[in-house]
Amino acid sequence: MQPLEFDSLSYRSGSSRVFLISGELHYFRVPREGWRDRLEKLKAAGGNCVATYVPWLLHEPEEGRFDFDTPQYDFDAFLTLCREVGLWAVVRPGPYQYSELLNAGLPTWLLKDYPDVRARRLDGRLIDMPFSISYLHPLFLEKTRRWFEQVVPRLVKHQVSRGGAVAAVQIDNELMGIHEWFGSWDYHPAAMGVGLENGRWSDFLRRRYATLDALNQAWAAQCPSWAGALPIDQEEPATTAEHRRLKDYNDFYFEAAGEYMALLGGWLRELGVDAPLIHNSGGPGMNAYFESSVRRMGGNFLLGSDHYYNLGLDWGDGTHPTPKYASKIFFSLEMLRHLGYPPTVFELPGGSAMDFPPITGPDIECAYLANLAYGMKGYNIYVFAGGANPPGAADPLVGMTVYDYGAGISPTGELRELYAVQKKVAEFIHARPWLPGARRQADCRLGLVREYCRSPHYGMDSAALPVSNYAAWTLMRKGMMMSAFCASLSPEMTDLSADDWLDDTTTPLMLACGSSMERSLQEKLLRFVQHGGKLLLAPALPSLDEHFAPCTLLADGLPAQRGEPAVWDACTGQAIGWETGFAGGGSLILLERSWVMGRHWDAAMLRGALERLGCRPIVECSNPNVWTSLLSDGEHSQLFLMNFFTAPFTVRVRCRLPGSSTWVDAGEHTLPGVSVKPVDLNLPAD
Amino acid sequence: MQPLEFDSLSYRSGSSRVFLISGELHYFRVPREGWRDRLEKLKAAGGNCVATYVPWLLHEPEEGRFDFDTPQYDFDAFLTLCREVGLWAVVRPGPYQYSELLNAGLPTWLLKDYPDVRARRLDGRLIDMPFSISYLHPLFLEKTRRWFEQVVPRLVKHQVSRGGAVAAVQIDNELMGIHEWFGSWDYHPAAMGVGLENGRWSDFLRRRYATLDALNQAWAAQCPSWAGALPIDQEEPATTAEHRRLKDYNDFYFEAAGEYMALLGGWLRELGVDAPLIHNSGGPGMNAYFESSVRRMGGNFLLGSDHYYNLGLDWGDGTHPTPKYASKIFFSLEMLRHLGYPPTVFELPGGSAMDFPPITGPDIECAYLANLAYGMKGYNIYVFAGGANPPGAADPLVGMTVYDYGAGISPTGELRELYAVQKKVAEFIHARPWLPGARRQADCRLGLVREYCRSPHYGMDSAALPVSNYAAWTLMRKGMMMSAFCASLSPEMTDLSADDWLDDTTTPLMLACGSSMERSLQEKLLRFVQHGGKLLLAPALPSLDEHFAPCTLLADGLPAQRGEPAVWDACTGQAIGWETGFAGGGSLILLERSWVMGRHWDAAMLRGALERLGCRPIVECSNPNVWTSLLSDGEHSQLFLMNFFTAPFTVRVRCRLPGSSTWVDAGEHTLPGVSVKPVDLNLPAD
Repeated sequence: MQPLEFDSLSYRSGSSRVFLISGELHYFRVPREGWRDRLEKLKAAGGNCVATYVPWLLHEPEEGRFDFDTPQYDFDAFLTLCREVGLWAVVRPGPYQYSELLNAGLPTWLLKDYPDVRARRLDGRLIDMPFSISYLHPLFLEKTRRWFEQVVPRLVKHQVSRGGAVAAVQIDNELMGIHEWFGSWDYHPAAMGVGLENGRWSDFLRRRYATLDALNQAWAAQCPSWAGALPIDQEEPATTAEHRRLKDYNDFYFEAAGEYMALLGGWLRELGVDAPLIHNSGGPGMNAYFESSVRRMGGNFLLGSDHYYNLGLDWGDGTHPTPKYASKIFFSLEMLRHLGYPPTVFELPGGSAMDFPPITGPDIECAYLANLAYGMKGYNIYVFAGGANPPGAADPLVGMTVYDYGAGISPTGELRELYAVQKKVAEFIHARPWLPGARRQADCRLGLVREYCRSPHYGMDSAALPVSNYAAWTLMRKGMMMSAFCASLSPEMTDLSADDWLDDTTTPLMLACGSSMERSLQEKLLRFVQHGGKLLLAPALPSLDEHFAPCTLLADGLPAQRGEPAVWDACTGQAIGWETGFAGGGSLILLERSWVMGRHWDAAMLRGALERLGCRPIVECSNPNVWTSLLSDGEHSQLFLMNFFTAPFTVRVRCRLPGSSTWVDAGEHTLPGVSVKPVDLNLPAD
Repeated sequence: MQPLEFDSLSYRSGSSRVFLISGELHYFRVPREGWRDRLEKLKAAGGNCVATYVPWLLHEPEEGRFDFDTPQYDFDAFLTLCREVGLWAVVRPGPYQYSELLNAGLPTWLLKDYPDVRARRLDGRLIDMPFSISYLHPLFLEKTRRWFEQVVPRLVKHQVSRGGAVAAVQIDNELMGIHEWFGSWDYHPAAMGVGLENGRWSDFLRRRYATLDALNQAWAAQCPSWAGALPIDQEEPATTAEHRRLKDYNDFYFEAAGEYMALLGGWLRELGVDAPLIHNSGGPGMNAYFESSVRRMGGNFLLGSDHYYNLGLDWGDGTHPTPKYASKIFFSLEMLRHLGYPPTVFELPGGSAMDFPPITGPDIECAYLANLAYGMKGYNIYVFAGGANPPGAADPLVGMTVYDYGAGISPTGELRELYAVQKKVAEFIHARPWLPGARRQADCRLGLVREYCRSPHYGMDSAALPVSNYAAWTLMRKGMMMSAFCASLSPEMTDLSADDWLDDTTTPLMLACGSSMERSLQEKLLRFVQHGGKLLLAPALPSLDEHFAPCTLLADGLPAQRGEPAVWDACTGQAIGWETGFAGGGSLILLERSWVMGRHWDAAMLRGALERLGCRPIVECSNPNVWTSLLSDGEHSQLFLMNFFTAPFTVRVRCRLPGSSTWVDAGEHTLPGVSVKPVDLNLPAD
């Protein structure tokens, strides 16, 4: 087999661009006699890869006693079979698996015999969830290292480089989820060094502030020592100093997570892994938490994300893909693209963790095609086939005897409705071998300030920060992005921490702007409009820098007057946007705060404002509730029409193909409720 | 016009049973020149009633200055017009309106000049939302009384009894919502008397405990005085004493709300209202909060509930009616029936408070028919037509210039998609004049312990209360009820505080049982099984009484052995239910805690267990995801097939008509995603 490689556009195998189509199959759950059958069915459904956890819980049942021989746990035989069937394999040896396993996959002896590894809140209390541990706790690391020393060599020998199937190795699982979802970041002294004169936290503060005086000034505090420089755990910061102190721990936590990830990655390399290392962000909202991790991991590493829409009755926003799901996967895939990876969904729903409500065929078809439409280049169906949980291995909080997920293949090997849909989608992809090399076409840009996305735990509005980082993020998603979709605009997200976007003075840029914005970005934006760039900015100009210190660099560079009225409220007729033109051809529309921050905007208003800034929309769709996305590799084009509502809609669509300025009639289409319709557009441009 | 009357089965008008079909039209928003047009369109759509708020905010713009003359605010003319068009009118003079009005409809001067009226948390801080006031604050009551003295006489003269249109008057709006939704019950000393030696709270405690010693014993506390007997505000109670102390304030709060409601109701009567008084619970989960209110209000009063499924992007569980919505409206309508009222939805969605996501025709058709299927006997569409908010009257947190809701009629009077659906549903109802007199048919019973539903703010699991009241409520809804629907069972809910259910020894009763259960109910249940009753109980027998004092009356009355294995887990084959037979023919199946509390059950297992207890199902549907409900008046029958998923399903259905034991083939039906299909069943029973 060829190794699994990738560049910033797609996966590669030898000289070909390929789409990664993987299915999650747990050798420890699927009955052993069914392994070959399931792998063959995966291949028959268009898959080229299989993914599995390798649970620490099962393979080290007592400390120091390893079990790699129980027939149901014999991953050696399983991986040999993967090679025989001709599937790449992604292995996920932890230390965490989650996977609805007891202790999220950690051995029971670890939690029982080493209770100090459990994560702590700021006040010293344990985080409620018993399996929420402190990643950098020396004891946890020591035990993890021993587990890796046992398991990794057994995986390494199956690598593609050695003639086997293992094409990628996953580090841990949904890093930070165990803290994010259970109420608190980790503040364990032994790991995070909180309260220590010399520890990770004080080292971080020394790097950031150099002196205790500087720190005390920044925090408006009187910390007597580095050990006494404690984080705060305050729901509603009132001052810039409090915002700063909260954000410091947030930044530190993400760095510590990156340190942990890099440590594990180093061990994997040391133990012989030459295949790509991968990791799965727990969901779209967490992608931005991995900035430090990604920086530390460097090359031959790939971050993907998990895109569920419903794992049970109380999970998510509905029983099927909704407009909210669509907006989340859009920004998730765009963020992964920004990081230089082919956007990959390492857990794309293949069922639900709960028996009810069910995941249906039309639902997953809609979800898969929506991910494809928004730029996904690889996916792993979680789960593709299930089986009984090994004795005592089920998480009692979930309580599944059979770990089934209502997957496309039943525990006894029967094909179900979802299988046919999964096969159909894979066939759609294989029939278009140009898809891996295609790019989403865009007619406008949405500025991404990654810090805004990282801010849910520190970024609350206050008198000191009238538009918090998190409010700006909300405005971007629910105001600009979703309104742009309703206007049948085709935004791409622009990573504003890069510089390449500055040169494009044709495609207008929208930016939801917090009170705080990096000094360097304020400077770049000013340069952008002064050199021909077209910018739509809401709801107000920033007044603080990234450290919440006064900074009006952008505002100071603009004319004192707020420009010409340029955008009007459709209801009241009042001006809500003012345009300032610049000598170099640049233009700025400042859309003032005249709406509710988290609210949807008038789509026609937004489209009008962007057209005023020179936007030339590439799609026109007659119904604002049908969203569109256009993929093209220059030769072939595919338009996706997406209906995330339950009502059927009939639409008339036209679009402009890449390189052409004329409209092509894309026809009239009726979309059932909750469906995505791909439209082939290989028409001669007239 | 005939007055609007009601009995426990339906509304009545003269000698006829009628269905109440109302539309919300705000005279202060719908342009005055459009009043007649909208009212006529409402009537043409099958409506027989119109509802409107009468906002204090607009009619008393400055304290003591009343405005009833501004043409747009002239409800006198509006109500005259209602009479002319031939529609009943429901008027809602507050004091609260909510209605996305500034201050939720309270005058600005009230909040500004009398800031002490704002509701307080236990620690004395204000509840965040500025319009959240303390209902029983003397100043608030004084100002409300003055408002009533002005407005009520102006409404009274339009009553049906005086030849006008006003058929019902609503007291306040979604009582308790202003505390429930904004983080805290109210603890204001001036209203609730918290911290006072003689105040409402200490009076309540004296009634409950008589002596301070008894109180201190119950609370395991050393309160030095009645004034010092403070409530606790603890998230995780650890002892029965803490549970008791938390519950005491919960009980007290509901009583105080009842006192407020009764006070306003008394004023309305005193000021001449002879029409029924009504109130709208803020939603299904709040219905049980009104037990004290209902008791105090007595006759010629009717409680309804508001049944929204989506008021904006971040609201509810999806963009359309989901299985969760269905389960909520079911228990809501059943609770209203228990109270002796024709189940009425005073706010049934006619659009959304937000522009996006939209409410579509198929969605509302599904929602309306589902409410009908589960026993609704009257509804008010909120809103039926909108218009511009009066200047300065819009709630800035919602920010709508035009209060439109995307309603069936546009602000300028054009008919939209929703209108046709609303008309179609009303025509469906009018074509079946027997519907008001019909009853839902049932084949099994779900026991309702109203206290369990009242418990979200005090009922957490603890070592002292292993199955909290709220956990029992969750188990009932998500375990028993939804699983019963998936088993195509037709449960009715049984109010266990009544006694009439004891005589039915044929229809099995299911009961989700908390650790705490009223002594009197334990006694009744024991009597029930000893006298022939069939009971399925989960997850364990109660060990405490309603005051969390030890009480094993039920367990003590049962044989010491747990009975014969009778129910088995489908996956493991292990016994999970044990049956005990009684001499009088009664039977108890105890279904042990072998599943996760909030999880769905195996529908076949549940159906099997109930059939073992003698259940004779009245419907069989080939797909567990299609839920059913059968209405009949004895002569006519209507079966509803309900699909709350987005996938279409095809089902084969048969049912037994009332009074018959043979199956009638109800045919094969394909249901689109998110739809309800009514099936006429007036077939000869063969």
